Amino acid sequence: MTFLANLDRPRAEMLRAKFAELMPEITVAISDEPYKKADVRYMLTWQVPNDIKTAYPNLEVIFSLGAGADQFVMSQVPDSVPVVRLIDDGLTSMMQEYVTMAVLALHRDLPGYIDNQRQQKWERVSVPPLTRNRRVGVMGLGELGRGALRALTPFGFALSGWARSAHQIEGVETFHGEDGLRRFLKQTDILVCLLPLTSATQNILDSTLFDQLPDGAALVHVGRGQQLDHGALTKALDTGKLRGAVVDVTEPEPLPEGHPFWHDPRIMLTPHIACITRLETSLPGICENLKRHQASRPLTGIVDKTLGY
Amino acid sequence: MTFLANLDRPRAEMLRAKFAELMPEITVAISDEPYKKADVRYMLTWQVPNDIKTAYPNLEVIFSLGAGADQFVMSQVPDSVPVVRLIDDGLTSMMQEYVTMAVLALHRDLPGYIDNQRQQKWERVSVPPLTRNRRVGVMGLGELGRGALRALTPFGFALSGWARSAHQIEGVETFHGEDGLRRFLKQTDILVCLLPLTSATQNILDSTLFDQLPDGAALVHVGRGQQLDHGALTKALDTGKLRGAVVDVTEPEPLPEGHPFWHDPRIMLTPHIACITRLETSLPGICENLKRHQASRPLTGIVDKTLGY
Repeated sequence: MTFLANLDRPRAEMLRAKFAELMPEITVAISDEPYKKADVRYMLTWQVPNDIKTAYPNLEVIFSLGAGADQFVMSQVPDSVPVVRLIDDGLTSMMQEYVTMAVLALHRDLPGYIDNQRQQKWERVSVPPLTRNRRVGVMGLGELGRGALRALTPFGFALSGWARSAHQIEGVETFHGEDGLRRFLKQTDILVCLLPLTSATQNILDSTLFDQLPDGAALVHVGRGQQLDHGALTKALDTGKLRGAVVDVTEPEPLPEGHPFWHDPRIMLTPHIACITRLETSLPGICENLKRHQASRPLTGIVDKTLGY
Repeated sequence: MTFLANLDRPRAEMLRAKFAELMPEITVAISDEPYKKADVRYMLTWQVPNDIKTAYPNLEVIFSLGAGADQFVMSQVPDSVPVVRLIDDGLTSMMQEYVTMAVLALHRDLPGYIDNQRQQKWERVSVPPLTRNRRVGVMGLGELGRGALRALTPFGFALSGWARSAHQIEGVETFHGEDGLRRFLKQTDILVCLLPLTSATQNILDSTLFDQLPDGAALVHVGRGQQLDHGALTKALDTGKLRGAVVDVTEPEPLPEGHPFWHDPRIMLTPHIACITRLETSLPGICENLKRHQASRPLTGIVDKTLGY
């Protein structure tokens, strides 16, 4: 039974060693070593190989190497092969760390202090308001969005959340749907985007959306690159509608040389590292799903291929 | 009854307006307006005026504009005048925000990403360990140190603390004294300095101390500038003993032009803004102490002039 680890060698070798210990009946193939594609029953991958429909006749399950699977071109995936996303406490914790760091950085004017350091300026940027007067709004109330809200709670921020459908979260004012979005944006000082990528969220962070925020708002973008209109962000920073942004995902990635984000002191840019899949934390979930599959029990975390999440 | 607000005009005017509302019997004098020094009964100040012993015969209480009073030259203060430090939930919250931001920034390699952005490099710096495998140690277990530990707890870091005398804190391994310091440093990956400034903590962050940390440790310095040997920090970063630092306090302040910290990509520098006294949060404590003083009851937060805290 071959499990193809279509990922970088250090993590693939770690996976092989762990499987040898936990599920020795599984043979781990690593994508840059020779292996027979026809033997592959399971595949762990960030993107779907081009020849998936023709060269892998015995493929039974695809494990997405991410909390979502929107990076897959679903039309390429054989109908009979389920796609399963990672469910991983480690991912939620990593996102909680990153979002907390980013929200606190914008709350405490870190981009301005980084720029001051560059200019050898010892100068207070502002006195931040009390957290109860700073309104943080999270778009996307899935596992990661709810996790981010939990992590922000102890700091005393005024928290709100928005999603397409209605949610109830203790201590968080929630909004939903198109009409709810307008009311949500109007009262959000620091906006955190953790939406899944769908046709409805493509380019959602555009000028129309930014214009609905209070003047001097700030953005943390940890959703997907295709959700952000780069020109609209630069314009919103230029007009003062936004005062700063932390951006972890872009379209394309890597961000091309010479792109204006690289040298914009109002933007803190990181290279899609808010969540890094750490196999030691996601492996138990993968093993559990393999055992379920072998026992013909339903898998957990199956992606709806029409919705994309 | 005159209360001298020896501080910047916006905060001083806010104080005057608040007193008009809460304690109208108090007249607030602002240091850059004319006032009679002989009328001053109370003074709120960051430093002690040079003529304090001669020009203010009716001074009864000095309120320090900080969580400590180590910025005062105590020998200048008349023996009969008590010095009271600010006790302010707002200060603890601000320090919790800053320390959490700084520890997460070092945990997630933010200085490296800031440097990468400058160089237009889209590159992962490292995969951070699980927080339970990252050991964060706080030196100084007063109100601010204990507050920082509380704020870090939900992230799951392995927490420890050190102080001169023994403390017990739930969920935190504590060390004390000289011998405890060695054992504390040996097991600290991210060191947070929140010590008060005393003759024993002057220059405590020196090469001898850094050498006792594990290789690749990191520093958050939010104590006082005089506690850090600047040359020792640069050397520890050069040898790889330390991999990064967040520094909020220096000696002198402002940091002089051309100082190596300004352009060191391994150091994130902020201009003593971890805690900013916000009068709206510290005012209730000041009023409470004024009422105690008028009723001849003991003041809270009196500074021991020989210890300096």
